[in-house]
Amino acid sequence: MSSMGTPANIFWQECSVGKSDRQKLLKQKGCVVWITGLSGSGKSTLACTLGRELHGRGNLAYILDGDNLRHGLNKDLGFKAEDRAENIRRVGEVAKLFADAGLICIASLISPYRRDRDACRALLPDSSFIEVFMNMPLELCESRDPKGLYKLAREGKIKGFTGIDDPYEPPLNCEIELSPDNGVCPSPCTMAGQVATYLEEKGFLHDE
Amino acid sequence: MSSMGTPANIFWQECSVGKSDRQKLLKQKGCVVWITGLSGSGKSTLACTLGRELHGRGNLAYILDGDNLRHGLNKDLGFKAEDRAENIRRVGEVAKLFADAGLICIASLISPYRRDRDACRALLPDSSFIEVFMNMPLELCESRDPKGLYKLAREGKIKGFTGIDDPYEPPLNCEIELSPDNGVCPSPCTMAGQVATYLEEKGFLHDE
Repeated sequence: MSSMGTPANIFWQECSVGKSDRQKLLKQKGCVVWITGLSGSGKSTLACTLGRELHGRGNLAYILDGDNLRHGLNKDLGFKAEDRAENIRRVGEVAKLFADAGLICIASLISPYRRDRDACRALLPDSSFIEVFMNMPLELCESRDPKGLYKLAREGKIKGFTGIDDPYEPPLNCEIELSPDNGVCPSPCTMAGQVATYLEEKGFLHDE
Repeated sequence: MSSMGTPANIFWQECSVGKSDRQKLLKQKGCVVWITGLSGSGKSTLACTLGRELHGRGNLAYILDGDNLRHGLNKDLGFKAEDRAENIRRVGEVAKLFADAGLICIASLISPYRRDRDACRALLPDSSFIEVFMNMPLELCESRDPKGLYKLAREGKIKGFTGIDDPYEPPLNCEIELSPDNGVCPSPCTMAGQVATYLEEKGFLHDE
């Protein structure tokens, strides 16, 4: 048992089973796949398809969906600026725990601001935060409008909606960017395959 | 994709890989082992020893330590009553996610109030919340005082310290109670073995 000193009276408990032991058990390396993009850009669909793909390969993945977490961990948070930042911070902290547990944690959130995403990246060890940017045109996302939210935003019934009256800041340094090819959006399977190939090549899907 | 209706504009994303699929992959069943008791009662030591025991059996466990989380997810929280309740609520919500991911999640927190622990229990599916009560006499905990906190509390330098000037409410319905036998405290290995045996007998360490 050792003390970190800050904050006062809170001690850091070290345990003898560590991340590397869990990774050996799981035969994979813990990491965070952070999917960012506009509402309707296909984040949740990619998360699910990637989850299936990884499970099919025998890897343990877990999805943290921004909307789902608002029913539980983040149910005390609303949509004003500081609540949105806190929402993302908490998901980042939980994603860090899952990666430490050895899982491939797939986080799916609009997370429109660069500073919030970069703060989550900073929580993770080197190169284990994989930012996936769903770079889909607003027109495409709005034409899909799977939850009817763009319509409400256009009618002024939702304020501060990303892409309409609140900005989306595209990543400057994301690991993977997914976008339409000659105006055609790749299928979820194609995109999930691209992310899985990245994880495979970077060694996350094995323990050696 | 289906709507739950509450809160407005937040949808619930269902995925085709579910808890039972992850449990098959891991060959175990997700659950939460919630260790409660006074400071110095041996919660963290039991958590670590149990973690080692389960890892040795090839099971995937992950420890959520109340103090450790105050450096990350809960670093915005202090020690006033509502912050303590929120601290426990968040650990309960995260523990629920880990159990849903298929892990044996070991949560170690003083969690002195029955209502807070019962709220966490209510988050988990039937019988997958296993409350472990470290029923150690205050005198024993205070004589150990591994973090020097009882001394500070007795000197009045920490206010609202559980067992000194704030109550600990013992569980009424815990699954496992650990206490000294004829005045002798069982070893961490003995106690961890008792919890592991419980998990084994209840079927959590296998997928069938």
